[in-house]
Amino acid sequence: MNKYQKRFIQIPGLALLLFLTACASQQPVVKPVTDPLASWTEGATKQRITEFVNTVTDKTSPDFVPVNMRIATFDNDGTLWAEKPTYFQLLFIIDRVKAMAAEHPEWKTTQPFQAVLENDMAAMKASGEHGLIELAMATHSGMTTDEFEIIVNDWLASARHPTTGKRYPQMVYQPMLELLDYLRANEFTVFIVSGGGMEFMRPWTQAVYGIPPHQVVGSSMETQYELRNGKPVLMRLPKIHFIDDKETKPVAINRFIGQRPIFAGGNSDGDFEMLQWTTSGAGKRFGLIVHHTDAKREWAYDRESSEGRLVRGLDEAEENGWLLVDMAQDWRVIYPE
Amino acid sequence: MNKYQKRFIQIPGLALLLFLTACASQQPVVKPVTDPLASWTEGATKQRITEFVNTVTDKTSPDFVPVNMRIATFDNDGTLWAEKPTYFQLLFIIDRVKAMAAEHPEWKTTQPFQAVLENDMAAMKASGEHGLIELAMATHSGMTTDEFEIIVNDWLASARHPTTGKRYPQMVYQPMLELLDYLRANEFTVFIVSGGGMEFMRPWTQAVYGIPPHQVVGSSMETQYELRNGKPVLMRLPKIHFIDDKETKPVAINRFIGQRPIFAGGNSDGDFEMLQWTTSGAGKRFGLIVHHTDAKREWAYDRESSEGRLVRGLDEAEENGWLLVDMAQDWRVIYPE
Repeated sequence: MNKYQKRFIQIPGLALLLFLTACASQQPVVKPVTDPLASWTEGATKQRITEFVNTVTDKTSPDFVPVNMRIATFDNDGTLWAEKPTYFQLLFIIDRVKAMAAEHPEWKTTQPFQAVLENDMAAMKASGEHGLIELAMATHSGMTTDEFEIIVNDWLASARHPTTGKRYPQMVYQPMLELLDYLRANEFTVFIVSGGGMEFMRPWTQAVYGIPPHQVVGSSMETQYELRNGKPVLMRLPKIHFIDDKETKPVAINRFIGQRPIFAGGNSDGDFEMLQWTTSGAGKRFGLIVHHTDAKREWAYDRESSEGRLVRGLDEAEENGWLLVDMAQDWRVIYPE
Repeated sequence: MNKYQKRFIQIPGLALLLFLTACASQQPVVKPVTDPLASWTEGATKQRITEFVNTVTDKTSPDFVPVNMRIATFDNDGTLWAEKPTYFQLLFIIDRVKAMAAEHPEWKTTQPFQAVLENDMAAMKASGEHGLIELAMATHSGMTTDEFEIIVNDWLASARHPTTGKRYPQMVYQPMLELLDYLRANEFTVFIVSGGGMEFMRPWTQAVYGIPPHQVVGSSMETQYELRNGKPVLMRLPKIHFIDDKETKPVAINRFIGQRPIFAGGNSDGDFEMLQWTTSGAGKRFGLIVHHTDAKREWAYDRESSEGRLVRGLDEAEENGWLLVDMAQDWRVIYPE
């Protein structure tokens, strides 16, 4: 068993232990009828979700959908976990640049690296998409896939969010965790379809969301098969293979899943085409948009935000029949306790 | 519910009905111990397979592998179904060129189309890889993904193999169907990783192999998201996105599955790197090569064959600890009855 395998077992093992401990301490004498969506406020939003699921799983309904077609896809950043003050993968990149700086003395005087090292967010943003790609290349390539996985796991185990102080996997949305479980309990197969890097997500999605690596679709780097001292490795190359965003989300869904979802959830205009593709199929379909309205418990943003910009989604949700989830009103809690 | 969805439901529905009928009629008073690999001859080959599965699923074994890491990958052409006189997808291409010829009068005098229309296999082969790609583009692009799926299904429902007269999905290998079922019964997740086109396989892999579309990895074309009369479609473009063969099989495994398999099966040198990647991981691993040795019931070919060429696999199987399956000796039957 290699290092990766051990780690893979340990994380779910720990999560399971914590979960079982939590369950044991809360175990009541009489088992109550538990609400699978307990963190969702009673009301129209929750009702639309449960009505949809009840209908497509009801064999007597004309809208019944057989199990092998119950495909659900979810965006990750801003939909399943937070994305402020900026995308967590960008915070990972910043931490990696700092960790790698000793090996790269030239970064002290080279943009966009200098901006990162000097915590100059304005200069970093000024470097634009090109600068961001340069930072991504420097931190996401030049190692094997196994090595990158260890780097991600080590970061997740040590890094803390700049404002909440939480570990990043603790900043997932409890109501969405319940929604994923609820869909799976109703025999949906649940996928992530994210603009984020697939290999940045896969090390932890099983333990945190119950979603195995092969059900995680996202952006990716080119890799190359090589023999290193006679042992095969997959080297991560400094070249983008695929950006999974906007109109390429349906492309990726077709490529990786091969079926059109009947349920899709997102939070930004980067998810517009995924929801459009999902809900324009025949039969009953569901499109869900998490609207960040909660400045107190999370963040409030939409039309003007650099992360999770939501304009078309807000303007066209109603005519498309998509559910706008009002985070402040519809969610009893944000993060898991 | 569209044509595809109906078809998709009907096929597994029928299979289930047949299965239940078979169970009902055979139900004995005392349940017999049925052999999950009944079509495999008793002997060393079969024993190696069952010993591996028994070991990795034995919780008391040091080689135990947890369920979420029991990933198995199989090549398709020549491994799960036949590939002679040539790849079935090429026979599909030939049939499509003939079916489309009326709309393309210029094909009568343009190679490689002329060769196909005149059944001139020598001229077709002489057009080389470039010619083959041209034929693939002409027949695999210019339509939506939904339209292509209907074309594949219609072909499968009508076309017959030139020498056996069977429908193509009847030319799958019964012993391999049993192996897929046996692995799944032992909680493996089974994937196809084939050089063939993903969207040529996905319409029928669920019904024939029990493998859902999202567990089918293969070569693919570029697609583009478009609105057609306000309705979104994915158009298939005349551009290859990815060829899944040799050293790109591990690349595709990493991209689509995100975990290293512990079991891989192939039949040609196109599968060499997939077996190498699989079996060089830590812990107990299994590499299997179907060796086509049965000129009487199937075909006998290896080193000199244009399809399923097997040289390195034969020469290096033993030193790599890979199992060579001797089709003539190890399989009681070839195709399902």
